[in-house]
Amino acid sequence: MEVTILGCHSATPRSNARPSAQLLEMRGHLFLIDCGEATQVALRNANAKFARIKHIFISHLHGDHFYGLFGLISTFQLLGREAEMHIYGPKGIKEAVLLILKLGGAYTPFPLYFHELSGKESELLYEDDKVLVRTIPLQHRVYTNGFFFQEKEGERRLNMDAIQQYPEIEVCDYQNIKNGKDVVLNSGEVIANEVLTFAPQRPQSYAYCSDTLYFEGLAADIQGARVVYHESTFLKNNEELAAKTMHATAYQAGLTAKNAGAEALILGHYSSRYADVNLFKAEAQEVFPNVYLAEDGKKFVFN
Amino acid sequence: MEVTILGCHSATPRSNARPSAQLLEMRGHLFLIDCGEATQVALRNANAKFARIKHIFISHLHGDHFYGLFGLISTFQLLGREAEMHIYGPKGIKEAVLLILKLGGAYTPFPLYFHELSGKESELLYEDDKVLVRTIPLQHRVYTNGFFFQEKEGERRLNMDAIQQYPEIEVCDYQNIKNGKDVVLNSGEVIANEVLTFAPQRPQSYAYCSDTLYFEGLAADIQGARVVYHESTFLKNNEELAAKTMHATAYQAGLTAKNAGAEALILGHYSSRYADVNLFKAEAQEVFPNVYLAEDGKKFVFN
Repeated sequence: MEVTILGCHSATPRSNARPSAQLLEMRGHLFLIDCGEATQVALRNANAKFARIKHIFISHLHGDHFYGLFGLISTFQLLGREAEMHIYGPKGIKEAVLLILKLGGAYTPFPLYFHELSGKESELLYEDDKVLVRTIPLQHRVYTNGFFFQEKEGERRLNMDAIQQYPEIEVCDYQNIKNGKDVVLNSGEVIANEVLTFAPQRPQSYAYCSDTLYFEGLAADIQGARVVYHESTFLKNNEELAAKTMHATAYQAGLTAKNAGAEALILGHYSSRYADVNLFKAEAQEVFPNVYLAEDGKKFVFN
Repeated sequence: MEVTILGCHSATPRSNARPSAQLLEMRGHLFLIDCGEATQVALRNANAKFARIKHIFISHLHGDHFYGLFGLISTFQLLGREAEMHIYGPKGIKEAVLLILKLGGAYTPFPLYFHELSGKESELLYEDDKVLVRTIPLQHRVYTNGFFFQEKEGERRLNMDAIQQYPEIEVCDYQNIKNGKDVVLNSGEVIANEVLTFAPQRPQSYAYCSDTLYFEGLAADIQGARVVYHESTFLKNNEELAAKTMHATAYQAGLTAKNAGAEALILGHYSSRYADVNLFKAEAQEVFPNVYLAEDGKKFVFN
C-alpha cells in the first residue's frame, strides 16, 4: 500500500504549501482522496499515472479539499479520457461540477458518475474482490466524511521450495494452490495446502480522517485500521480554537490512533501559524509512538 | 503602467506552465485579468499586494481562465477582507461563484458585486477620473470578451526650474497649475501655464485579447491601444487547427497589433505542443516588429 501526499496544508495554498489531496495505491487501484486547488499539478510533479484514477473521494466541500476537482476533470477531458470516473462526495458536488462544465461549454467524453453522500452512518461506497471502501462520518462545520479503505484477505503465497519437491505439480496448478486447495498426486497422495503455501499477506487498511473535531466515537468507527491519516490543524495550545473551528489537535489525533489500535499515524492539515511541523509529531507522540508527518510530495509505503 | 504575467499558458496547468492570469497596475489601480487555477499562488510568488485588487475581469468561462477565482475569493474571506470586490465576466459567473461558496457554508464578509456580461458590442465597464475599462468582443467557442484599459489624460507636470523663477508662486498654487491654470502675479503680470509646466504624460492603454479567432474587426475595436496582449495559441503551421478551435496564430496576433497601430505586442497562451516559444516571437515579427513574449512571473513596465 502506498500513500502519496499531494498536499497536506490547511486553508490558503502557497507555493510551498499545497491544500489537501492524497493518492492511495491499494491492490492495483489508484484512489484520489480530496482534491485541493492545483492537485493536477501535484499529480504531475509526483509522476503519478493519474489516468489510472477511477475513483475520487471528496471529504467535504471546503475549498482546500475540492477546488482542484474542476481543473482535473477538464484535464481528463483534454487528454481524451474514455474510462469511467466515479466521484464520491457530499450532496451538491454533482450540481457544482456539472454547472462549471456547462458554463465552459464542455461535456466529458467519458462516463462521469456521482455518488452523493448525505448519510450520518458509515456506508459502503465501493467493493470488489480485493478492496472495500466505507465512509467515516466526521464532525466538521459542513457535512464531512473520512474514508476507510480496506484490503480483503489476499491469496495464499506459494512456497516454491516445497512445491519443487513435487515435480508433478505444474504451473497451471498454481492458481488453485493460491486459492487454498490441496493437491492430489497421481499416486492418490494428498498434499495439504499448508505444506505448499504461506499465509496471505496481512491485509492493509487506511483510514483518512480530515477535517474533524475530536470525538470519542471516531476511534470505534476506524477500529483496526492499520494506518490512520488524521488532521492536526492545531496544537494543544489552541485546543479551544480547534473546538471552535471544528478541527483537531495533534494530541487528539494521537489519541484517536491509539484508541483505534492503529499501527501508524500520519499527521497533516497543519495550520500555517506554526513554523515548525515537528511540534505536531512531538505532541502526538505523547500518546501514540509511531507518528509520521505528511509532506507535500512525500510517498509512504506500508507492507 | 505595469503588467505582471501571472500565467500565460493554454489548457492544462503544469508546474512550469500556469494558466492565464495577469495583474495590471494602472494609475493606482490593481486590475486582475483572468484567474486560472492557482492564480492566488502566482500572486504570492509575484509578491503582489493582492489585497489591493478591487476589480477582477474574467474573459470567458473556460477553466484555464477562471478556475482560480473560487480559491482567490475564499482566501480573501480567510484574510478578513472588508473592501468591496467587483467581478466582471460572462453571464453565469455569479451563479457559479455563489453556488461554490454556498456549498462550503461560506459567505464573504466583504461586498461582492457581479457585473455579468452578455452583450455583443463593446461596453463601458468602469470609469473614474483616471481610467476607463471597456469590453472587447472576441470570437471564441464560448462567449468571450477581452478588456481595453485606458488611462485618461493626466495633469500637466510642473516645470520646477521655471516655477522657481517666481518666488511668489507657493506650493498651494501647484494643483491649479497642474490643472492648466495661468498664474497672475501681484504685479498683474500673467504667466502662461505652458511656461510653468510640461505636457501631461501620454496616457497609456492596454488591450487584453484572449481567447479569440482572428478577425479583421478586432484591430478597429482596439485602435490606438499602445500595448496589446494577444493570444497566440498556435503557429501558422497549425492555422487550420487555430480556426477550428477558435484560436489565433502568432502571425495573426502580429497583424492585429499592426492594424491597431499598437506600439508593443505581448504574446501568450501558447500551446504546449511547441517546445520553443521563441518561434512565436519570430512569426509575429514577420508583420509587427516590437514583440514581447509573456513568461509566468515576468513584469513589463511601459512608460
